[in-house]
Amino acid sequence: MNPVRQAYPGVPQSGIRVVLCRPIYGGNIGSVCRAMANMGVSDLVLAGAGDFDRVEARKMACWAGDLIEASRAVATLDEALADCALVFGATARGGLYRQHTRSPRDWAPDILAAARSARVALLFGPEDDGLSNDDLARCHHLIRIPSSAAYPALNLAQAVMICLYELYTAGGTFEAPAEKSPLADSGQKERMLALWEEALLAIGFMQPDKARHMMLGVRRIFARGALSEDDVRILMGIARQALWQSRQAAGKRPADPPR
Amino acid sequence: MNPVRQAYPGVPQSGIRVVLCRPIYGGNIGSVCRAMANMGVSDLVLAGAGDFDRVEARKMACWAGDLIEASRAVATLDEALADCALVFGATARGGLYRQHTRSPRDWAPDILAAARSARVALLFGPEDDGLSNDDLARCHHLIRIPSSAAYPALNLAQAVMICLYELYTAGGTFEAPAEKSPLADSGQKERMLALWEEALLAIGFMQPDKARHMMLGVRRIFARGALSEDDVRILMGIARQALWQSRQAAGKRPADPPR
Repeated sequence: MNPVRQAYPGVPQSGIRVVLCRPIYGGNIGSVCRAMANMGVSDLVLAGAGDFDRVEARKMACWAGDLIEASRAVATLDEALADCALVFGATARGGLYRQHTRSPRDWAPDILAAARSARVALLFGPEDDGLSNDDLARCHHLIRIPSSAAYPALNLAQAVMICLYELYTAGGTFEAPAEKSPLADSGQKERMLALWEEALLAIGFMQPDKARHMMLGVRRIFARGALSEDDVRILMGIARQALWQSRQAAGKRPADPPR
Repeated sequence: MNPVRQAYPGVPQSGIRVVLCRPIYGGNIGSVCRAMANMGVSDLVLAGAGDFDRVEARKMACWAGDLIEASRAVATLDEALADCALVFGATARGGLYRQHTRSPRDWAPDILAAARSARVALLFGPEDDGLSNDDLARCHHLIRIPSSAAYPALNLAQAVMICLYELYTAGGTFEAPAEKSPLADSGQKERMLALWEEALLAIGFMQPDKARHMMLGVRRIFARGALSEDDVRILMGIARQALWQSRQAAGKRPADPPR
């Protein structure tokens, strides 16, 4: 019925299941599939879903349409959750039975730890009303996504995305593409600044007696951000070119004064 | 043209502007509005947007339709960014000019700090291709949302949501509804356990010579999770009722043995 799926190579098969309880809109179901693919989760169960718009679902799933096909539709929450050791329900509403919530970031380490040895369900309610009290009774823990008091209810697929994003981030496997050029060291930067001083004098930006003072300002500008070795090479190229150009101009000055 | 907007009371007017560059789909524009309202941001500029589906936009905006009406449409990115001190572009693609990225969580403190004294733009590209190299040239910094290598490109509104959610979370103003009942202290829990021991003996769950051993198991069960004072009161109520019921049964035993 529900074989282990590894739709996305490179992502370890996780024990995370997304359960949508009585979802209404095909577009949202498709968006949930895309969010799952973005965050490397592939086990989707639809509990008590009506006859949703499959064309809209596939449109919003974009390149994650295979997750719609691989999803499992069951009639009841009990069926969706039967083989899950822990159930985390997402709720934005307050109320007596909805107080013991924690944010997805707070829960993430617990969820990941549990998912290493068991199946963990993240349960999301229908678009109009969210999880009912009966649904909540099936949850072991509740997730509350931080949101504005003025409009706390997120779109279904947005709520799924935030939860899965927090799990993906907490997994710590992602590395942003790093700058390939290493940071320039002090020696390189000093050589660059010496060349700039020479060039700024040559082009007449400053007079020798003011150079020391003006260069403090120039140094401050270049110190505002981290400079890579590539950056320093570009800056030295600029100074060299300015020096060369001003020497050319100096040679030509009698005939062709700078305007 | 673009007055200070405070659509969402309780949210401090932030210097965060969302700029959608050449967005295509009305549904995504509406979803962006809802995400902005969820995360307390209200300044939306559409740069070079075509003739998008406004019915679909209003449908997906849900209760944040006022943000569509309040959004500003301009022809070019330059107009959208002219009054912004810093521009952060979101990109999922790699490439020579896309290496110096950091995650939205890494950037969040810098963005919030800058937004206290200036306007900061978060720039998102069109649904089909994302930001072009020309668009990127207008960005001071690049954001890369952590995502699966198998399918790294998020839906436009999902990308906006993750970035704004990180800013909202980093703002530190949100407090999840906390459990009202404080945690039970050791003394309360020991009184509860004493009552349970008495009740478990009374109902014949264990014999006196095994009670010490059995109670270690019961203690372990109750120690697995944090117990509030309310929880302990409920558990003491159960034990008292069991005691009362077994005394009743003992009194009636000759006439009405327990089944």
